[in-house]
Amino acid sequence: MTTERIDPPALSPATGFSHAVVATGSRLVFLAGQTALDRDGAVLGDTLPEQFERALGNLLTALRAAGGTPADLARVTVYATDVAAYRAHAPELGRVWRCLAGRDYPAMAVVQVVRLWDEAATVELDGFAVLP
Amino acid sequence: MTTERIDPPALSPATGFSHAVVATGSRLVFLAGQTALDRDGAVLGDTLPEQFERALGNLLTALRAAGGTPADLARVTVYATDVAAYRAHAPELGRVWRCLAGRDYPAMAVVQVVRLWDEAATVELDGFAVLP
Amino acid sequence: MTTERIDPPALSPATGFSHAVVATGSRLVFLAGQTALDRDGAVLGDTLPEQFERALGNLLTALRAAGGTPADLARVTVYATDVAAYRAHAPELGRVWRCLAGRDYPAMAVVQVVRLWDEAATVELDGFAVLP
Repeated sequence: MTTERIDPPALSPATGFSHAVVATGSRLVFLAGQTALDRDGAVLGDTLPEQFERALGNLLTALRAAGGTPADLARVTVYATDVAAYRAHAPELGRVWRCLAGRDYPAMAVVQVVRLWDEAATVELDGFAVLP
Repeated sequence: MTTERIDPPALSPATGFSHAVVATGSRLVFLAGQTALDRDGAVLGDTLPEQFERALGNLLTALRAAGGTPADLARVTVYATDVAAYRAHAPELGRVWRCLAGRDYPAMAVVQVVRLWDEAATVELDGFAVLP
Repeated sequence: MTTERIDPPALSPATGFSHAVVATGSRLVFLAGQTALDRDGAVLGDTLPEQFERALGNLLTALRAAGGTPADLARVTVYATDVAAYRAHAPELGRVWRCLAGRDYPAMAVVQVVRLWDEAATVELDGFAVLP
């Protein structure tokens, strides 16, 4: 397997994500959207950073159970209910990301949706990984 | 081809979806978003379950034309205009899903968007499948 | 590599997209969401067609840097903040697409979200490509 992260100089600098990820491997991992649920299905966390940490942790739990590591993540979509708040917390969310997932960033998109499955959930992450 | 569905015990139980799907195969099928359109481009169905059945049926029509079966679906995203209504109808939508697509659930995400291509459409599904 | 575009007769005619794309290849390219940013991170374009052209151009810049061409695009999701406006501009957006990316359409979905990363951005495109 090889994974190459590409950030063309003609595009705005990629901070905390990659503009493109090229992956070669034999197994594709499709990850369901994860919010800040505990194993009983309750949304944990009153703040966006708390929910983000839990949601990302859940995504990585699913990825690890599938045999992958954070560096194998090729693509993540973030569905947030308040992108202005997400941007206001971006430095802290970046620290959470690097702490849990490191610096091998996937290609990402962040969009503001109306709501998620649980009304109390403020952020959901889904993704794709490629394994050897 | 192998397809493995993974639901780690550390995550909340997956009902009607898989937390992760690991697929090995040579052909990737990318499926466009489908709503409850008939072949003339009219939105069919006054209720969410009716629209869901038609939209999922359209997605599976595209998948079958590509050579796949419902069990090959690795990932589906549901864009709904009213997630509260979607949850209220969840048991019925689950029955529709199992009737049309069986119990080999893909990794999924359900998010509430503002609107879909046709103003009358209330649910859209897109997806990825992996074939041998 | 082979890429086959499939538009089943049972579905409504696909104009400017493919209902399904079946791709065989060794390298998967995951493309981050692109809006109408210039390389300094400013949103360019006052109109939707201007923003669409820039956003698609950015997506193709990332794709080319990854070694791909527009015909390798297998899937694109369009997140728009005003789908009614998107539809009103559809003929012009179609011309922009064909000019920049040709007629080998990917599987697509267009959904209306609440907002994108930059408040001034009105359209974002992300995608997947498969390379030999």
